[in-house]
Amino acid sequence: MTSNRGVESPSSRPRIHQTHPHFHSTVSERKLRRFNYLIFLFRLAGFCFSLSAVVFMIATTSVSPHWYNFGAFRFVVAANGIVALYSLFEMVASAWEITRGSTILPEFYQVWFDFVHDQVFAYLLVSADSTGAEMVRQLRGVGSCKSFCVQSGIGVGLGFVGFLFLMISTLLSGFRVVCFIIKGSRFHV
Amino acid sequence: MTSNRGVESPSSRPRIHQTHPHFHSTVSERKLRRFNYLIFLFRLAGFCFSLSAVVFMIATTSVSPHWYNFGAFRFVVAANGIVALYSLFEMVASAWEITRGSTILPEFYQVWFDFVHDQVFAYLLVSADSTGAEMVRQLRGVGSCKSFCVQSGIGVGLGFVGFLFLMISTLLSGFRVVCFIIKGSRFHV
Repeated sequence: MTSNRGVESPSSRPRIHQTHPHFHSTVSERKLRRFNYLIFLFRLAGFCFSLSAVVFMIATTSVSPHWYNFGAFRFVVAANGIVALYSLFEMVASAWEITRGSTILPEFYQVWFDFVHDQVFAYLLVSADSTGAEMVRQLRGVGSCKSFCVQSGIGVGLGFVGFLFLMISTLLSGFRVVCFIIKGSRFHV
Repeated sequence: MTSNRGVESPSSRPRIHQTHPHFHSTVSERKLRRFNYLIFLFRLAGFCFSLSAVVFMIATTSVSPHWYNFGAFRFVVAANGIVALYSLFEMVASAWEITRGSTILPEFYQVWFDFVHDQVFAYLLVSADSTGAEMVRQLRGVGSCKSFCVQSGIGVGLGFVGFLFLMISTLLSGFRVVCFIIKGSRFHV
């Protein structure tokens, strides 16, 4: 942990610290930085899994039934696609916050934007993936669908993993919102 | 608002105020009470809708296909049943807190218990109801299912309304958890 001090030496980002509207000690600054890295990691993981889910669903190799013939699979692709795009945006926002020390949108809008979208998209994603899982289960029961069932099953599974990461991101951004409500700042330290 | 003062006169609950481990002014006490009433109301609404969903699903009048023949509908009944039971417990916990001024479990366990269960059950419920909705959609597409489809559709719809109330309860209990983390007390005022 002490090796991080070299990275955050005052000479590397002196201006940003000075122009920052809030005053923070070095310790709380470092804690916040770690919190932001954590958020970035979960966003990255969520992005990877949601994108993989979309790719797996679309790339299903099958002659007669295609993924777009099933409403449930269209829902899975759409929800995972939306979440992948949103995660990409949030990754940029998070990287911006780590490098520049301020949010893209004004702080009030940023914390609420993150939290509300996280919540809505988490429920959307779990809803879509559950629908897709039910569809896979039914197709498997009918039989005569080998690689298509396996591949779409993997796609739905990847979507569920992406949901897990989005769920954790929701908790983190929810924490930031309540910090903002109670303390008037997204900083919890 | 001022008419509430008569209800909360010091003569009505003097001991509880004195034995309470935290000191709070009358204003914050009243705010907390309003917050607890709000939680109670959402729990009550969630309970009513989840229970109605279970009753509607089970009471489907049909000769050949029963609700328990479909995995999706079994999931809907189970998830709504669990949420109804949980909401009932939380209603008791909330009423206990309103009347006695303290939580059933120790404060730390209570706020985390509420929040974790709210989160998990909210995702469970939206997952089950989505699965059920997909099933109803498919049955409707096949045709030859009139009252069964309508009734199970209403059951799933009631489950979704129950989910909305549980989602709001999750936000409120999440707020309490972050208050507890930041301030060491569930009181936000």
